[in-house]
Amino acid sequence: MADTVKAVGWAARDPSGFLSPLKFARRATGERDVQFKVLYCGICHSDLHSVKNEWGSAQYPLIPGHEIVGVVTEIGSNVQKFKVGDKVGVGCLVNSCRKCDQCARNLENYCPAPIFTYNSVLPDGSVTYGGYSDIMVADEDFIIRWPENFPMDKGAPLLCAGITTYSPLKNFGLDKPGLHIAVVGLGGLGHVAVKFAKAFGTKVTVISTSASKKKEAIEKLGADAFLISSEPAEMQAAAGSLDGIIDTVSAAHPVQPLFNLLKPDGKLIVVGAPEKPLEVPVFSLIMQRRTMAGSMIGGIKETQEMIDFAAKHNILPDVEMISMDYVNTAMERLAKADVKYRFVIDVANTLKAE
Amino acid sequence: MADTVKAVGWAARDPSGFLSPLKFARRATGERDVQFKVLYCGICHSDLHSVKNEWGSAQYPLIPGHEIVGVVTEIGSNVQKFKVGDKVGVGCLVNSCRKCDQCARNLENYCPAPIFTYNSVLPDGSVTYGGYSDIMVADEDFIIRWPENFPMDKGAPLLCAGITTYSPLKNFGLDKPGLHIAVVGLGGLGHVAVKFAKAFGTKVTVISTSASKKKEAIEKLGADAFLISSEPAEMQAAAGSLDGIIDTVSAAHPVQPLFNLLKPDGKLIVVGAPEKPLEVPVFSLIMQRRTMAGSMIGGIKETQEMIDFAAKHNILPDVEMISMDYVNTAMERLAKADVKYRFVIDVANTLKAE
Repeated sequence: MADTVKAVGWAARDPSGFLSPLKFARRATGERDVQFKVLYCGICHSDLHSVKNEWGSAQYPLIPGHEIVGVVTEIGSNVQKFKVGDKVGVGCLVNSCRKCDQCARNLENYCPAPIFTYNSVLPDGSVTYGGYSDIMVADEDFIIRWPENFPMDKGAPLLCAGITTYSPLKNFGLDKPGLHIAVVGLGGLGHVAVKFAKAFGTKVTVISTSASKKKEAIEKLGADAFLISSEPAEMQAAAGSLDGIIDTVSAAHPVQPLFNLLKPDGKLIVVGAPEKPLEVPVFSLIMQRRTMAGSMIGGIKETQEMIDFAAKHNILPDVEMISMDYVNTAMERLAKADVKYRFVIDVANTLKAE
Repeated sequence: MADTVKAVGWAARDPSGFLSPLKFARRATGERDVQFKVLYCGICHSDLHSVKNEWGSAQYPLIPGHEIVGVVTEIGSNVQKFKVGDKVGVGCLVNSCRKCDQCARNLENYCPAPIFTYNSVLPDGSVTYGGYSDIMVADEDFIIRWPENFPMDKGAPLLCAGITTYSPLKNFGLDKPGLHIAVVGLGGLGHVAVKFAKAFGTKVTVISTSASKKKEAIEKLGADAFLISSEPAEMQAAAGSLDGIIDTVSAAHPVQPLFNLLKPDGKLIVVGAPEKPLEVPVFSLIMQRRTMAGSMIGGIKETQEMIDFAAKHNILPDVEMISMDYVNTAMERLAKADVKYRFVIDVANTLKAE
């Protein structure tokens, strides 16, 4: 058993998902580890799924949080890239197999044996704990260097919501100036997707079921156009106009109307994960050589690129800062999509040691 | 009304799809037209769908056939590329708008206003007639030059079945030596896909519902491996092993087992067109950044490349040569997939003038 250090976090104990304080043990800083004091942690929709065991793999007590930023407090003897006092972040991954083709391609996110930041089982049988806690420790290869002069509080959600939308825009060639991109769903993922797509120089349309989001999408987020997906006339008028779509919707929804919006060779990239299969009309794919693909977060190298790009272009999520003891209320509001657009927990100032 | 010339063909008159001789008028050879004597014409599954009006757009009398080869008999005054006596072919397209982005990219097959070889309405209101007929006429830009010393009888089906499988292998980067490709369904399309994929230097697995095709797939077509899609253990053992799949099945079928076979970034390309939507499990796309895409025939430039490639590598479909008056029996057999693997009509020797 490796040495451990005392830590405090907020954990769910059962599928009610109710979070409450927990004293627990983190591993002590190993040779290649970076330990840091957690300053802020974003609340991702995955956290909600996980604490309620909606994906069926919850191991309680479960401390969620994978949008974690802080300041280095200790480094292992073999750490090369970081020093005490550095600003750092950890996203969804804290390790991977490091032997597979995906790891070799800097795509640890598609490694068949990833170690996620929380609720993953380590080789020694212990379980990982996330960022709703006072300290964090991870191998330096999975630590993101935080850019100088880039806000840590608002920036934290980029470590999941940011890379989840940045990576597919890059990977599927949807980052070229002049392209016309749409973002479906204006939530935690969608609003960041709009900001990245605009920064890449693309024309951006927001597609939503709700007309109420039009003003915000255009005036606040800088989208160029807005489509109400339930308005057939509007949708028809935009047929064949898009190079790509980032679909952030995690509820079941019809995709035929989205395919109709795509040009030949257009790409529908899904980053939300509806539980039930989507019904895909094959003619819509074949007749115009359209693509439907999925994408899940990103590798560590690309996450670093994303953060550096965000800092350079001043891309910051719109967040609501909360205290640690508001987290259960925040989870309830998140379930109702009642947040613009991401909660961030002010961990260092509000997590009490007892 | 343009001048016309007399022609003879076999036409369906109603949705029974029964074909019988018809005297009809083709347009006379225009300035940019090439007229040719039809020697052979392949029977594509689309012909069957069309004569029975299964796609709902049939205009009777309907003369099918879009795998047409022959010898030039007349050229227009402005024809640049062909002369009388040249061996030529026509595939699925005889014209397009020539103004859109797709036409500019040599992708006339994705033009929004394509003129198909049969059952398409021309600007003057006349309807196009296919290759189950004695002569053919088309704009020289849509005429394929037949390679020297390349069999016209066996080669005819390449003009549809060939380009339908060659194009997605090329376009989606599945033509690189060392990749591992699977072909689902061993029919008219599938058996040609295997031959192209082998010629590209990829490892090829055939996936079929029927164990009876294994011997043929491996010994005759040269496939490297064979999987029975209904055998879970076999399919599980091959999980994550494929770079790409060409899915030629036009009946509804589960795609989850196919996704499971793909590596991260693997691509499932559908070229068959099931009428009902396919159920796509989104997690399978997201977790491994997999792609599902469609592809439909190919542009004229690529069709020429395909034929030249096939000639160079001696890629020929396996065909059953039939006489014109066998066509109704052939259609019945085709509906039961009772052909290895494509019927070709010996038009010039068996189509009677009366």
